[in-house]
Amino acid sequence: MTLIMKSATIRRSKVKELSAEVVDSNPYSRLMALQRMGIVENYEKIRDFSVAIVGIGGVGSVAAEMLTRCGIGRLLLYDYDTVELANMNRLFFRPDQVGMTKTDAAVQTLSDINPDVVLESYSLNITTVKGFDTFIESLKRKSAEEGRSSGVDLVLSCVDNYEARMVVNQACNELNQTWMESGVSEDAVSGHIQLLVPGETACFACAPPLVVASGVDERTLKREGVCAASLPTTMGVVAGLLVQNSLKYLLKFGQVSPYLGYNSLKDYFPAMEMKPNPQCSNSACLQRQKEYIQAKPARDALAKAKLDAESSSEAECPLHMDNEWHISVVDDSEAESSNIGKKPDALPDGLVHELPNADKYQEPPASGETSAITDDLEELQRQLDALNSS
Amino acid sequence: MTLIMKSATIRRSKVKELSAEVVDSNPYSRLMALQRMGIVENYEKIRDFSVAIVGIGGVGSVAAEMLTRCGIGRLLLYDYDTVELANMNRLFFRPDQVGMTKTDAAVQTLSDINPDVVLESYSLNITTVKGFDTFIESLKRKSAEEGRSSGVDLVLSCVDNYEARMVVNQACNELNQTWMESGVSEDAVSGHIQLLVPGETACFACAPPLVVASGVDERTLKREGVCAASLPTTMGVVAGLLVQNSLKYLLKFGQVSPYLGYNSLKDYFPAMEMKPNPQCSNSACLQRQKEYIQAKPARDALAKAKLDAESSSEAECPLHMDNEWHISVVDDSEAESSNIGKKPDALPDGLVHELPNADKYQEPPASGETSAITDDLEELQRQLDALNSS
Repeated sequence: MTLIMKSATIRRSKVKELSAEVVDSNPYSRLMALQRMGIVENYEKIRDFSVAIVGIGGVGSVAAEMLTRCGIGRLLLYDYDTVELANMNRLFFRPDQVGMTKTDAAVQTLSDINPDVVLESYSLNITTVKGFDTFIESLKRKSAEEGRSSGVDLVLSCVDNYEARMVVNQACNELNQTWMESGVSEDAVSGHIQLLVPGETACFACAPPLVVASGVDERTLKREGVCAASLPTTMGVVAGLLVQNSLKYLLKFGQVSPYLGYNSLKDYFPAMEMKPNPQCSNSACLQRQKEYIQAKPARDALAKAKLDAESSSEAECPLHMDNEWHISVVDDSEAESSNIGKKPDALPDGLVHELPNADKYQEPPASGETSAITDDLEELQRQLDALNSS
Repeated sequence: MTLIMKSATIRRSKVKELSAEVVDSNPYSRLMALQRMGIVENYEKIRDFSVAIVGIGGVGSVAAEMLTRCGIGRLLLYDYDTVELANMNRLFFRPDQVGMTKTDAAVQTLSDINPDVVLESYSLNITTVKGFDTFIESLKRKSAEEGRSSGVDLVLSCVDNYEARMVVNQACNELNQTWMESGVSEDAVSGHIQLLVPGETACFACAPPLVVASGVDERTLKREGVCAASLPTTMGVVAGLLVQNSLKYLLKFGQVSPYLGYNSLKDYFPAMEMKPNPQCSNSACLQRQKEYIQAKPARDALAKAKLDAESSSEAECPLHMDNEWHISVVDDSEAESSNIGKKPDALPDGLVHELPNADKYQEPPASGETSAITDDLEELQRQLDALNSS
């Protein structure tokens, strides 16, 4: 194996199963270690997932590389653009790829990095009628055999304009497909990621994120003589946060962020959560909202069953009715299930209180201090419309 | 130019000056746009800077690529390791580079990406006596012509063990060299960056960051059969935050973070600031602390002169003694100098109050809520020593 690897023209061979063996020649040893460290229950499941990435630019290309290096099962890549020297201030593409379509250049690089990933490349514009049809059909493929409406597990939107975001939104609402949106500001120093679950969270038509709702006509970004700034740092951070959120969602560990902003000038990371808008202009969104409400009794029953199972296991713990010393028992399995690598409480007093407690910040999204559930979306939409029309 | 670019074997030619021209063939157009957008005053200055990166692994290699794509003047790369297939779950290195030294592989990739960057490669172990001497000498080179003790503008530590961090700390204290430290936890899901200014902030011997102070012998990470987990996402985010902080420091925009943590399971980003320890065990640190205290009158005089200059320019604004409508005048130049891309206050009311205000969080580092200046370092050091010796 090592001999083959030393030749630059021959790729590494595919592997049948992810091995946890700790040898220098195993490309998966550091990923399988996530299982041994108790972060991920079953890392090998990564090979079962299909992820579609729309927009293979400064964020999308890095997201594709991260997922490829993580050993994702299948990647679907969409872009209509070609590589230019003007893209070289962002990660991923190389000067020798100038003139290639971004999807072809990406497949070239990614298949060399990890031949185990199935790569599908679509060089098309999803905002055209024909492009949209191909987009929808490619997402649906493989869905029948799995009894789902979509054949992918997650769609990542990494496009740079409003119109393409609305098209991804339309497709995902129609297919009842969970997706994540990402964006970087025109001045290159801030960005965001957002989780969109049709019917459960706001869709992109319910409330476009603030970074897009700046009132600027996005098409002006591509005018001759006018161009947006960009930085490999901001785009690398946004891609990292996006794929980290994707891994947490797919492999079920940590807390999946509904919305996370990144203001690089102040290193400030706002969080929030948005409910769907009952007056959303997107009819597929309204249909998903209806289904979500109709499924409430089933969800409640499931939650109750889970709670009952937990409390019955708690009943097995010894109970002390008298507790004059106010001693409380913390269940070890409960403490572990919070999945936090560094537990501040485990440190001596002198260290604990220098840092704010993560739980105080992110856990209750409705507390209003660092995050808020936006309920009055009608008013918000009105203001956004006013901004966009100005 | 385009014709040359389409050949995979020929590199793009060097450019004499950074051009702001918006054409597809200009690799710097999106960076020079930072000037036009008012983020950076003089982006071209990037070519005057030299940055040393110690450790070309999962964080260091990506940091090197980001700085290269940003058009940094000179990069000094230090590592003693070779590329292995087991590194392929992180960005940057390719399977065809297996067996090469990390510094040689990095120079190969980086010089193809941007031939304008001067690359110096040092394949050596800085923790050996000979390696340390070469390290110090390479940092000092070019210092005489510029009348400085160090010939580089910034050192980035991207190493994976305590010993190497202490060596970088020693070199930077001796050379009075500002540096930034970075780290990723063994379980791959958290990390940090930290700014160290000799004499002004805590040095690494004053108070090692919490992520290193976990009491684990770092050498065990390299034992046969035991390996740390790693993820391209966490390492990409940490590299992005590190280089973003470096760009802010070098090009003087935004706020440079003294310490920024990243807990990916909760998307939580703790901030803090640490003063130097007057009982630090590092004698070079104590010397720098002494100099910093001695220079206080000069710093105060400079700050007063700046304040006077500002208040005299404020006196030029029209004054209205009667202000029964409580109208306050905001100076445009002042509003712009805050350098914030998205101003929440410019948004309609409905949007403003859904998000927390960045200023409230990060500006006063002594407020105790999200950050704290650690003063009692003697006690902290004692506790860290106890942790590390256990």
